[in-house]
Amino acid sequence: MQAELDDLKNRLAEVDDVENAAALLEWDQLVMMPPGGAEGRADQTATLQKIAHEKLVAPEVGRLLDSLSRELRDRPAEDDDASLVRVAARRYERKRKIPAELVAEMYQATALGLQIWAEARAKNDFPHFLPALERIVDIKQRVAACFPETESPYDALLDDYEPGMLTHQVAAMFEELKGTLLPLVKAITARPPVDDSALRRDYPEARQLEFSLNIVRQFGYDFNRGRQDLAVHPFCTSFSTGDVRITTRVLRNYLPTCLMGSMHECGHALYDQGYPDRFRRSPLAYGASLGIHESQSRLWENLVGRSRGFWEFFYPLLQAAFPENLDAVDVDVFYRAINRVHPSYIRVEADEVTYNLHTLLRYEMEVALIEGRLAPKDAPEAWNAKYKTYFGQDVPEDRLGVLQDTHWGGGLIGYFPTYTIGNLVAAQFFAKAMADEPGLRDDFKQGEFGRLLGWLRQNVHAHGRKYLPADLVERVTGQPLSAKPYLAYLKQKFGELYRL
Amino acid sequence: MQAELDDLKNRLAEVDDVENAAALLEWDQLVMMPPGGAEGRADQTATLQKIAHEKLVAPEVGRLLDSLSRELRDRPAEDDDASLVRVAARRYERKRKIPAELVAEMYQATALGLQIWAEARAKNDFPHFLPALERIVDIKQRVAACFPETESPYDALLDDYEPGMLTHQVAAMFEELKGTLLPLVKAITARPPVDDSALRRDYPEARQLEFSLNIVRQFGYDFNRGRQDLAVHPFCTSFSTGDVRITTRVLRNYLPTCLMGSMHECGHALYDQGYPDRFRRSPLAYGASLGIHESQSRLWENLVGRSRGFWEFFYPLLQAAFPENLDAVDVDVFYRAINRVHPSYIRVEADEVTYNLHTLLRYEMEVALIEGRLAPKDAPEAWNAKYKTYFGQDVPEDRLGVLQDTHWGGGLIGYFPTYTIGNLVAAQFFAKAMADEPGLRDDFKQGEFGRLLGWLRQNVHAHGRKYLPADLVERVTGQPLSAKPYLAYLKQKFGELYRL
Repeated sequence: MQAELDDLKNRLAEVDDVENAAALLEWDQLVMMPPGGAEGRADQTATLQKIAHEKLVAPEVGRLLDSLSRELRDRPAEDDDASLVRVAARRYERKRKIPAELVAEMYQATALGLQIWAEARAKNDFPHFLPALERIVDIKQRVAACFPETESPYDALLDDYEPGMLTHQVAAMFEELKGTLLPLVKAITARPPVDDSALRRDYPEARQLEFSLNIVRQFGYDFNRGRQDLAVHPFCTSFSTGDVRITTRVLRNYLPTCLMGSMHECGHALYDQGYPDRFRRSPLAYGASLGIHESQSRLWENLVGRSRGFWEFFYPLLQAAFPENLDAVDVDVFYRAINRVHPSYIRVEADEVTYNLHTLLRYEMEVALIEGRLAPKDAPEAWNAKYKTYFGQDVPEDRLGVLQDTHWGGGLIGYFPTYTIGNLVAAQFFAKAMADEPGLRDDFKQGEFGRLLGWLRQNVHAHGRKYLPADLVERVTGQPLSAKPYLAYLKQKFGELYRL
Repeated sequence: MQAELDDLKNRLAEVDDVENAAALLEWDQLVMMPPGGAEGRADQTATLQKIAHEKLVAPEVGRLLDSLSRELRDRPAEDDDASLVRVAARRYERKRKIPAELVAEMYQATALGLQIWAEARAKNDFPHFLPALERIVDIKQRVAACFPETESPYDALLDDYEPGMLTHQVAAMFEELKGTLLPLVKAITARPPVDDSALRRDYPEARQLEFSLNIVRQFGYDFNRGRQDLAVHPFCTSFSTGDVRITTRVLRNYLPTCLMGSMHECGHALYDQGYPDRFRRSPLAYGASLGIHESQSRLWENLVGRSRGFWEFFYPLLQAAFPENLDAVDVDVFYRAINRVHPSYIRVEADEVTYNLHTLLRYEMEVALIEGRLAPKDAPEAWNAKYKTYFGQDVPEDRLGVLQDTHWGGGLIGYFPTYTIGNLVAAQFFAKAMADEPGLRDDFKQGEFGRLLGWLRQNVHAHGRKYLPADLVERVTGQPLSAKPYLAYLKQKFGELYRL
């Protein structure tokens, strides 16, 4: 059995090497590559993805997984080797069911789709994007059809990003959110608007970057195992726990983009820097799901970075960095500005309260598209109608509506719910951390985050991808995934802020 | 036959993709990677190299090459497909003869060797490096033994870098050089020393970098298909003709390091940016050999960048960039300074005249090591004795002698002769270019290099790796590789400079 286990581990380690090399190709493309490199890079990425896929679904891997699943069936769920086999077998089963030609077709369609989407968004021209969207929806429906056992075809897509999560659970989650969020938004927008002009002054880029580096260093991001660069669309990526990179973007006239964006990506990075060394070169050295990953980024961005305590420590430093803008602005005004609730067209600019209405809108459209109840050509109309319902206003152009996000052009259908799952899980984890470590929030006032990071390392990061996200949440908090801690957090924080 | 050709091309294209991905991993490691990434990166690089090797020596590739070599045997040597099959078959035969375990052993030994060499150099401690060197020499002897048909085992190693070149040809080349260079160095060092203090003033780094970028842009380096970064040991690398990157290094108190180094790497880059598009993703989209590659870098660095005409154009600009250092220095003084001949310990700092004595020394030692006539433990003594013979002085410490170059620690034995071949070929190509394009040198005085680049593109770059280096030289110049143009160039230029 040990020989089989070693054989499997070596094979999975090579898959991991190739996937990490492909991740570096992508980082380089988005951060460093000169424009002329695009054609060659597309070939290189496609070849590495093909090799990783072939190595993962090799019949010998299937045989090893079968045999080892039987051998290890009596081990506890916590056991490293049993977890490795369980996680790898789940991935193997999924990948194996999708024919290689369909995978290739999808890569091709989404590479093209991303390009056409970018053109269409620039020109505000949905009809230009439509054929690409139709093709991608069709391919995704065929991918879903590879899993005929699912209740909704959307289940099959969701599982790529949030393993084990089902469409009806997502529907119930959004229903519960809607019940609280819609009245909360209504109540807030009835209050006098918050002045956030302090955030919209002239903030030289270099000083913003320097300040953001200081924050993420203080959070515990290890620059010996990472670096921060500029990117058009900020992201976090990693090639091992020893090399976890974040990117950010800076707007000279809007402070939160760089500051809050850096904290967000740092949250992802702290997770990726936190897997145990013994998981290296294995499928366990990853986050449990996109939702759990997002819980880490949202936790640091919102529950820490938009908290009163955090700014008690950092605001005087921010004033010292930008005295010309902030000397006359007191911390309360700033705290209210950075937490302003304001219905916006663009999801990535949304505040904590309205954010989930954006993901709800996309989720409802995605399910309808995949279940065949909505034709891609009718997407703009459906989008605009839903937007009117949830935000009470009209969408002036598709660029601010259906064309705003890259996901559908890139084939990422089933992804949006993970953003909201992330918000929920962040609040649920944070509530548990505060219960375990009383006074945790007071640490922030001293610029001290080690106790929070330590709690996350021990309770969340240490498990890597061992457990399904729902199991992890239950293991960490003793409760199933729930919207309650999140809604309680929102009502308390924004009730106070808006004196509701 | 077309189906076989397509099959072969697809297979070679995938090998190319993987090798280019591995090249990006290396660039990133040297330019961007945080220190913590080293362990994971070593695994990723090893896995990609293994995959490329396996894909290249796959039995099916051998079958296709056999069959297509027969099918295409009547095609002219210029034919693209026949060239592809010829080049791929030569590579296949070489790779196939070295057992996979020996390849793996070599990668492992050289990865470790590089690290130990760096430590040994830092501590000036040859005995620390000795066991690694012994292991690498032993492995290289075993690699050479895979090619029992060669006259000298060194032939087998040389062929990795300079295909088709034989040890006895290299020996003859160095003999001819020695006959002229030793008396030339003697005559020059008998003349009054040249004052190069103007190069050793305080040159702020940012302005040096900006100036070097202007030069390489003027040479024709396309930044849409490349970029320049900083690296400890400057190099040029490429991942396609659309993405060819150079690196440089800047010393605040010594101007030539950045300026001449940037021109050198730019010469490599212009070659890599110049292969025809139809060679993309094939083994033809490469330089003919390391020697031919070096001919391009040395041509731009020395025959252009250290020429009188070049500085007639650029020196006033350089004075304007650094008025505090150069306003009182006239162009003749600067031209003499940048061409100062001065025996040095370190090869990479050597002038045009003494440079080849450095490579000669290493070449003679390498042949003796590989043929078993010199034991690694005796290398420092042998080095110092040879240095005394060729340079007339003693080596004060191994850091300035046997430990100075990274090559042996990295397993690059057989590489050094290519530096000298590069010098010879540069002069031979340049003489032909001047014969074809009278007045070419006058272009430089106008800062105009398009005619030279055009000539190189058409006569050298357009062929990629189609021809063996010796065949390429003959095809381009109508003459076999010869030391005469190079020696004539040196005698004329330095005879004038030193009034011999």
